[in-house]
Amino acid sequence: MLIVQKYGGTSMGDCSRIENVAKRVIQSKEHKNANLVVVVSAMSGVTDKLVEYTHHFSALPNPREVDMALSSGERITSALLAIALESMGYKAISLSGRAAGIITDSIHTKARIQHIDTSLIQDYIKQGYIVVIAGFQGVDKNGAVTTLGRGGSDLSAVAIAGALGADLCEIYTDVDGVYTTDPRIEKSARKIDKISYDEMLELASMGAKVLLNRSVELAKKWQIPLVTRSSFSKDEGTMICNEEDIMEAAVVSGIALDKNQARVSMVDVADRPGIAAEIFGALAESHINIDMIVQTIGRDGKTDLDFTIPQSEVEEAKNALKRFESEVGMIEFDCEIAKVSIVGVGMKSHSGVASRAFKTFAQENINIMMISTSEIKVSVIIELKYAELAVRSLHKAYELEK
Amino acid sequence: MLIVQKYGGTSMGDCSRIENVAKRVIQSKEHKNANLVVVVSAMSGVTDKLVEYTHHFSALPNPREVDMALSSGERITSALLAIALESMGYKAISLSGRAAGIITDSIHTKARIQHIDTSLIQDYIKQGYIVVIAGFQGVDKNGAVTTLGRGGSDLSAVAIAGALGADLCEIYTDVDGVYTTDPRIEKSARKIDKISYDEMLELASMGAKVLLNRSVELAKKWQIPLVTRSSFSKDEGTMICNEEDIMEAAVVSGIALDKNQARVSMVDVADRPGIAAEIFGALAESHINIDMIVQTIGRDGKTDLDFTIPQSEVEEAKNALKRFESEVGMIEFDCEIAKVSIVGVGMKSHSGVASRAFKTFAQENINIMMISTSEIKVSVIIELKYAELAVRSLHKAYELEK
Repeated sequence: MLIVQKYGGTSMGDCSRIENVAKRVIQSKEHKNANLVVVVSAMSGVTDKLVEYTHHFSALPNPREVDMALSSGERITSALLAIALESMGYKAISLSGRAAGIITDSIHTKARIQHIDTSLIQDYIKQGYIVVIAGFQGVDKNGAVTTLGRGGSDLSAVAIAGALGADLCEIYTDVDGVYTTDPRIEKSARKIDKISYDEMLELASMGAKVLLNRSVELAKKWQIPLVTRSSFSKDEGTMICNEEDIMEAAVVSGIALDKNQARVSMVDVADRPGIAAEIFGALAESHINIDMIVQTIGRDGKTDLDFTIPQSEVEEAKNALKRFESEVGMIEFDCEIAKVSIVGVGMKSHSGVASRAFKTFAQENINIMMISTSEIKVSVIIELKYAELAVRSLHKAYELEK
Repeated sequence: MLIVQKYGGTSMGDCSRIENVAKRVIQSKEHKNANLVVVVSAMSGVTDKLVEYTHHFSALPNPREVDMALSSGERITSALLAIALESMGYKAISLSGRAAGIITDSIHTKARIQHIDTSLIQDYIKQGYIVVIAGFQGVDKNGAVTTLGRGGSDLSAVAIAGALGADLCEIYTDVDGVYTTDPRIEKSARKIDKISYDEMLELASMGAKVLLNRSVELAKKWQIPLVTRSSFSKDEGTMICNEEDIMEAAVVSGIALDKNQARVSMVDVADRPGIAAEIFGALAESHINIDMIVQTIGRDGKTDLDFTIPQSEVEEAKNALKRFESEVGMIEFDCEIAKVSIVGVGMKSHSGVASRAFKTFAQENINIMMISTSEIKVSVIIELKYAELAVRSLHKAYELEK
């Protein structure tokens, strides 16, 4: 059995925590009689500090140099974990991203993994080593060090697991798994034991920050079961796997809340062919991410166009949309909204899931501003002040506490 | 003109100091119209912190892993300096020891440079880059990262200067050069403008901690003029070069003091052939460094043997010498001693240098316990309490303040 484990910055936060990680690694090795490859993040705070340093001299430091500095944090923790494992009597060796054969493109600070040459990793596994790999980094084809951007160490772990054909990839953080909703909002929120890749993708994009989408997508592509769990508890965590591997899929798995969206309402847009393409083209040019889009049926040669964007991109959007002012009656921006989503693979085969949500909103007198649905998700935009009430009501309505 | 500069940990201590270093680098480039290769240390304190981390888990951590962690500090500062230089409008690029082509043996934590493949450095110089290289590190022939031990960044700089055939190697520290003696002892101590490699070697081994001997030896071997100066002042510093390149060599260049020696006195040693070889063989096996040795002429089949060792090695020496107890009347260890040395290439051609020292000691009523001389040095062992008095008197006797 081959397991790839990844430990985040909080888990590697200081020497005594690294010792704790070493013990967990050894436990996994012994209990499961497994070969272990361990991917580590930098100590929490270190990467932020290095980012601060690199931006001291210039608002736009050369990304190549930023990567040279940033990649150091994981080199340090990988060496320290190898030393800790050796001090406990186990053969262990640290490998930088380069030594681990992680080849990326040349987009510094947000490189993408192109290929992993696992030969050295496999050599060491065969020799009985626990292989500790510096996460978040690789090298491009010219040998320059690159980093993978936010959540990069998770990506390293999943990609290595995929390239090695590992049986399991465990992501250890300070959160003990994926919950039916945010436990700070609804106390009866329950940890989910198993969830499908697709559901996780919907929940992750809603701001359940346990895992970034890139990692989940990669795990799905490689078909590697992914477990997210806490390094500070013995809890089993949440397994993210294929729908088929979940015996009793819930109709609804979880309720996600996203308070970082803004609604853009374009009223009385000239209803001519191609106008929507022009508007969204202009936004795309400004690298603004559009999420939900609702267009009403036109009347009198006019139509209404509503969509949501991240709040942080409102100013850019205002600039990008200026040139359409003559063709639009009014453009409104509303940040006082929340997006609530009901996610579950069971929806595909169960009718009435959406209607139960609408009934719940009606009972609580919450007005629905926009609706968008996919095969496994129903998302609604409501007024921000009702966000927590909506989450709690839906959690109860779908009996997620059970 | 090609200049290699090296900046130490204090000079690279924080972002504003790195900015200051960047300005100095640019000044050198502009004023001397030179190509610049800059070797940097880690921020002061960082390497010590990393050493502490690696020893948290084990008194003897795997040196390979220690090097993986330790080499990070210089990677960070090299990237930061490159960013600082770019922010000031200059082309700059950082290279790790690996990228700079520094190949070492595999003795981790105290590796020796075997070879430098300068092709990448030279490429970047040709393209007009200021090349910033992470000091203190290299890779062995298997590609494992190594570090060079104490003073390693100086060694990197001198070796790179040698391999590139540089015109000059400047070592920037927080000290502004080599002095005729320790200014904390004798206020009239004067900074030396030029000193020969050989004199510097004698002064350095006495504890004038400006440069380690390995660096001076290497500079001598490569015939690279070496300048040691402060990054915090405009002072010219001290140039270390060939004797022939110093127009007016002083008879005496400086007075060095070493308070870290201990005297071992073996009284009434059986005067049989080979006994000295056995005693010093036993000490060598225990890796104890012998400095001065004095043996009196034997009488009655007995002889006296005096020598000095570092104080830190007294306990090992006691153990190593136990087996000779039956052949020796008495073994005494005395840590209350000081070694004072008068160094100068002019001695070779001037008589009376040593006698002036002895006269000075006599005037001050300082008893001489041991004497040892070389072509360019007279060293005496005296009681510790007279150490500073001896230094001040000699400094005056040789008129070094002038």
